[in-house]
Amino acid sequence: MSLHLIIGDKLLSSWSLRGALALDLTGAAYTEELIKLNQPDTRERLLKHSPTGKVPLLKTEHGTIADSLAIAEYLAEQFPDAQLWPKDIAARAQARSACAQMHSGFFAMRGNMPFDLSHDAPLAPVPADVQADIERMSALWAECRAAATETGPYLFGRVSLADVFFAPIAVRLRTYQVKLSSTDEAYVETLYQWPAFKAWQKAGLEEIER
Amino acid sequence: MSLHLIIGDKLLSSWSLRGALALDLTGAAYTEELIKLNQPDTRERLLKHSPTGKVPLLKTEHGTIADSLAIAEYLAEQFPDAQLWPKDIAARAQARSACAQMHSGFFAMRGNMPFDLSHDAPLAPVPADVQADIERMSALWAECRAAATETGPYLFGRVSLADVFFAPIAVRLRTYQVKLSSTDEAYVETLYQWPAFKAWQKAGLEEIER
Repeated sequence: MSLHLIIGDKLLSSWSLRGALALDLTGAAYTEELIKLNQPDTRERLLKHSPTGKVPLLKTEHGTIADSLAIAEYLAEQFPDAQLWPKDIAARAQARSACAQMHSGFFAMRGNMPFDLSHDAPLAPVPADVQADIERMSALWAECRAAATETGPYLFGRVSLADVFFAPIAVRLRTYQVKLSSTDEAYVETLYQWPAFKAWQKAGLEEIER
Repeated sequence: MSLHLIIGDKLLSSWSLRGALALDLTGAAYTEELIKLNQPDTRERLLKHSPTGKVPLLKTEHGTIADSLAIAEYLAEQFPDAQLWPKDIAARAQARSACAQMHSGFFAMRGNMPFDLSHDAPLAPVPADVQADIERMSALWAECRAAATETGPYLFGRVSLADVFFAPIAVRLRTYQVKLSSTDEAYVETLYQWPAFKAWQKAGLEEIER
């Protein structure tokens, strides 16, 4: 199976990171193409691949798939043995709900705490809507843990697409130095120790030096 | 299987409509509970059912599922014979991509052309970002038709979750009197003739008279 992932800067593109982590869960080999964001020709280059003009994009034998959630569902179907979603039906429904909530929400956090792997300073003061997003995120993670039927350090025990979708949130919480519960802090650390995340983080930070 | 759908006003809640149309595709019986939006106790009533505080919600034997896209995927899994997504892999990937793009985008259209079944006036002038959303929507529909492998008047020929997600867009385009291509106009009319849509529309307009 030929899989080619088109991404933006690793330093800045939280949605691209989700595409790469979803692919990591499959264990499949894939190639990668980085289109630098915020350049005069960025949009033109992206439009050559997809009318959405956005990253990530996954080029497959079944066409070019736009949007991280659609990519995730495609990979979950194509690699059933890799169990990208939790196996238990109720846990899987909760995982999908959590990812969908991330996909269409948390705008205050996203807008006020933009993803940047090199960031390292608190947000001060924290606007009320951002604080509400932070608290809702912690509650959502707790809902996921409560629905888990497997054991392990990830949201549903075993690693899943839910962790793929929340890894960029772990980055925001850590780089903006948000004070977390010990449970959430341990989860953030779990994501930071994920080998595919570490490789992405290293490459992202190296982009600064170029 | 017990299925209970919690919705907002039929007149106003575009995401609730998606929940109802997705259920219609399954052919399953379900019960419905309407929580009137924009009331002093709306949020409190919603929070009794889900920490998201949003509609739609689907109560199932596998828990309460929040978010229309998560509900759609759950129903697609639970009712495989009803083929909620297109059968062809590439068409299904495109359908999921289209729904995900709707789920996380088109904010200018959504913000400037709020869903209201009783609306009947053009948006004038049409802001540039709204016009761009309208044109992108038409292009996205064309991409879906190009990926279709079945015949019929819906986006992928046979009715699917893609039509569920775009039915509220048909309402916006018609009620704001947007000039459409004949292909798109025919598609909007197809959605308006969908019996489950017609029943919802009738109930929504009757809410005004109460």
